[in-house]
Amino acid sequence: MAASRAFILILFLIYHSAIGLKYNTKPEILRSLLSSGKTVENNTYIYKTKTFEVLVDHFSFSVTDTFKLRYLVNDTWQRGNNAPIFFYTGNEGFIETFAQNTGLMWDIAPQFGALLIFAEHRYYGESMPFGNKSFSDAKHMGYLTSQQAMADYIDLINYLRSDTKTKHSPVIVFGGSYGGMLSAWIRMKYPHIVQGAIAASAPILQFSGVTPCEAFARIVTSDFRAAHHECSNLIRKSWYTITNVTSSDEGKKWFKENWKLCSPLVNATHVRALKSWLSDIYGNLAMVNYPYEANFLAPLPGYPITAVCKHLVEPKLEGKPLLLALKKAINVYTNFTGKTECLSIDNAAPNLGDIGWSYQACTEMVMPMCNDGINDMFEPEPWDFKEYSDQCYKDYNIRPRLDLACTEYGCKDLSAATNIVFSNGLLDPWSSGGVFRNLSSSTSVIIIPEGAHHLDLRASNPRDPVSVINARKYHRSAIKKWIKEYRDKFA
Amino acid sequence: MAASRAFILILFLIYHSAIGLKYNTKPEILRSLLSSGKTVENNTYIYKTKTFEVLVDHFSFSVTDTFKLRYLVNDTWQRGNNAPIFFYTGNEGFIETFAQNTGLMWDIAPQFGALLIFAEHRYYGESMPFGNKSFSDAKHMGYLTSQQAMADYIDLINYLRSDTKTKHSPVIVFGGSYGGMLSAWIRMKYPHIVQGAIAASAPILQFSGVTPCEAFARIVTSDFRAAHHECSNLIRKSWYTITNVTSSDEGKKWFKENWKLCSPLVNATHVRALKSWLSDIYGNLAMVNYPYEANFLAPLPGYPITAVCKHLVEPKLEGKPLLLALKKAINVYTNFTGKTECLSIDNAAPNLGDIGWSYQACTEMVMPMCNDGINDMFEPEPWDFKEYSDQCYKDYNIRPRLDLACTEYGCKDLSAATNIVFSNGLLDPWSSGGVFRNLSSSTSVIIIPEGAHHLDLRASNPRDPVSVINARKYHRSAIKKWIKEYRDKFA
Repeated sequence: MAASRAFILILFLIYHSAIGLKYNTKPEILRSLLSSGKTVENNTYIYKTKTFEVLVDHFSFSVTDTFKLRYLVNDTWQRGNNAPIFFYTGNEGFIETFAQNTGLMWDIAPQFGALLIFAEHRYYGESMPFGNKSFSDAKHMGYLTSQQAMADYIDLINYLRSDTKTKHSPVIVFGGSYGGMLSAWIRMKYPHIVQGAIAASAPILQFSGVTPCEAFARIVTSDFRAAHHECSNLIRKSWYTITNVTSSDEGKKWFKENWKLCSPLVNATHVRALKSWLSDIYGNLAMVNYPYEANFLAPLPGYPITAVCKHLVEPKLEGKPLLLALKKAINVYTNFTGKTECLSIDNAAPNLGDIGWSYQACTEMVMPMCNDGINDMFEPEPWDFKEYSDQCYKDYNIRPRLDLACTEYGCKDLSAATNIVFSNGLLDPWSSGGVFRNLSSSTSVIIIPEGAHHLDLRASNPRDPVSVINARKYHRSAIKKWIKEYRDKFA
Repeated sequence: MAASRAFILILFLIYHSAIGLKYNTKPEILRSLLSSGKTVENNTYIYKTKTFEVLVDHFSFSVTDTFKLRYLVNDTWQRGNNAPIFFYTGNEGFIETFAQNTGLMWDIAPQFGALLIFAEHRYYGESMPFGNKSFSDAKHMGYLTSQQAMADYIDLINYLRSDTKTKHSPVIVFGGSYGGMLSAWIRMKYPHIVQGAIAASAPILQFSGVTPCEAFARIVTSDFRAAHHECSNLIRKSWYTITNVTSSDEGKKWFKENWKLCSPLVNATHVRALKSWLSDIYGNLAMVNYPYEANFLAPLPGYPITAVCKHLVEPKLEGKPLLLALKKAINVYTNFTGKTECLSIDNAAPNLGDIGWSYQACTEMVMPMCNDGINDMFEPEPWDFKEYSDQCYKDYNIRPRLDLACTEYGCKDLSAATNIVFSNGLLDPWSSGGVFRNLSSSTSVIIIPEGAHHLDLRASNPRDPVSVINARKYHRSAIKKWIKEYRDKFA
């Protein structure tokens, strides 16, 4: 029972992001980097949950409110004085999700005698600056920024180091996806506090003028094409098939019954939402196309895209038979446990994690996305910043600052960055915005050809491809080097 | 007449900072790094004055107000496409003062074909975020921070580069004193936007736990001792002589008449203010102990400390004769032009520049200062953070964040910094908090044994010591290298 509830929760989340049209004209943006929600069930790892008081606004003296930021601690392997601190820079969701899905930190903590810390990102999970008013209006939401979040982490690190036992503890940050962006950026901005960063699948170049908007969709497509050469073609064909079939009331009814939707498709908005939801699933599948059974964005078999595409091999499929095959394919994602009774398309209570990311996408994290339907398998959809901005204004009374991320953190010129490993899996659509060339003598790029979204951060697994085993070896050697460098300074 | 007015204005400023006891328990803090106020009179250099709209708060989306930041432009020597931009990161005062006193930029602009920009710091000069309400209360003052100021400069730089003619213009920042701190920090925080920094006399280590509080006073003292071995002793003796003489009403009257004060000394507060004012003058003299006649903090002869100490050579001086000698000595500072009719101790209208710096000293720029009266020539005064903090709370309804500057910018570990030249004159008391060892292979330290406060930023002068000539040569070669590095990237 419990497993099913967790599963449905994920579904809610995904569906909610699908009907994100209400929130955002670009549903692609809502393919949130990591789904949020406390989806972890079988807690592999044990920790204490603590809180730390931080300022709502680190960059002025006009706002002096504070709030409690959550973080998780495990000191099982902390060894002696000035043990390394392995610090996960939490991203857009409950911090437990990241703690449970970042097995690498747990796997290597004993070797390094490290203290493990997982810090929750403000405005996600339970770290709400203004309690249940945090998303009530633009004024309350406005302190949800990456820079404020990093300043939280920096204050927490200083606090952790305020003990004589940890005064000179080297701090290594870890993060995947948006969390990896934060890891890279926090090292760039606070190199005097953070000694090194493992930035896994961190699309720090996924910004306007740097990465073409179509890159993400093309990688998703190539993942499906690679699983079976017809798979992406059939998905491309499915869009207008859905349009055709659902153009009549009878067709809508047929669809509802055959796809076992919990609620009927009534109008065009519902159909758009359905398509958006499917797009999200394809993107998510590409992200979590791991070689073994896992439960990150959803409980899934190993190489789930291969499992999906097994149902989409017959080039002649069209009309309702195509949609029936697609339903079976989608089932891999929506009903791997076999316990889903219907596909819920209602989500009355918006998930905070999703609102948070949608807001960030409307302020500083503007990552242009588009599809052309020719080189990718999606319905054509251009990138229209004006429309995007208008929708943000409607939703949040705010205009996106298109260049803010590159202005704050740099995009085209990162040559001053040091002590960062950027890792990217080639199966991961977010690799589109990843760093693929060494920026300087003290940053490294690790390419994992068989890797999906930050596979290297996950716990080691007998089915790991050799490339990810090597990536983790590299991480360990980089961490060793950074710790030594730091210790030499205080020796 | 005009000269006299300007002179008196400076005096007001200094005196105001002396009676800063009202504002701040640590008058030393009010030895503001650079006096503010539009003290420039004979405009050596010509520029256009422009404004640029910036956000009041760069780090949240809750406050969307904007204001006009002033900057000065000279494009006389701007040559061709992508000409270098030499950008002065303005400090605590009218930007004109810094433009007129940073002759180095004007001297070398022709060689580099550079565009010259001098940007005014928010809350100083005429760049007031909330007009005349900017200092009205804690809420309005709260956006006066170094980080917000740097974000203003970054937006201005991006704007300057938005023209195709300047799209790939290398940007070199210059700054002296607090402006030098900003130059160093802006390169550290935004290396993707700023290619290199000349940080002259920038006390980025003048913070708690990094630099001992007594260092500043000792350097001031050694400057006076170096001018004449009795000078510092007599100044040390003068404090209790002032106390003794002014302990009676008759003595106060005598003092007022013989020192030609504009207003009488009535009570102990006035006497404390007088002493504080004298302390400030000694500090200022040490800062501007230039080898030639100059008018930076005041119109002064070359090597003004030597001129001051000529009156303080007789070891037996004591009582009223000592005070009369001191008056003559102080006259070098207060009446070099011979036009001062009386020393004004009234300043009803607080100068905004001084309030600004006093506020910054109460928030992020907490630079501990103390005197012991043994190793220095000042009255003993310990560093008492609690008292300091209480006074800040009383004055501004704010508590200083003692560790904020080091947390934000780093103090003990700056090894990741690149492309910065730190220059320090050994006569300059602010060298106490300067960088004196190479932090990395791409930062440099220049020591100017005969230099006072950022002498190297001043225009070349026939009386320049060879050390400052060499320093400027070094600056030019560093700038050349940074420009080449940047151009190679976009070649």
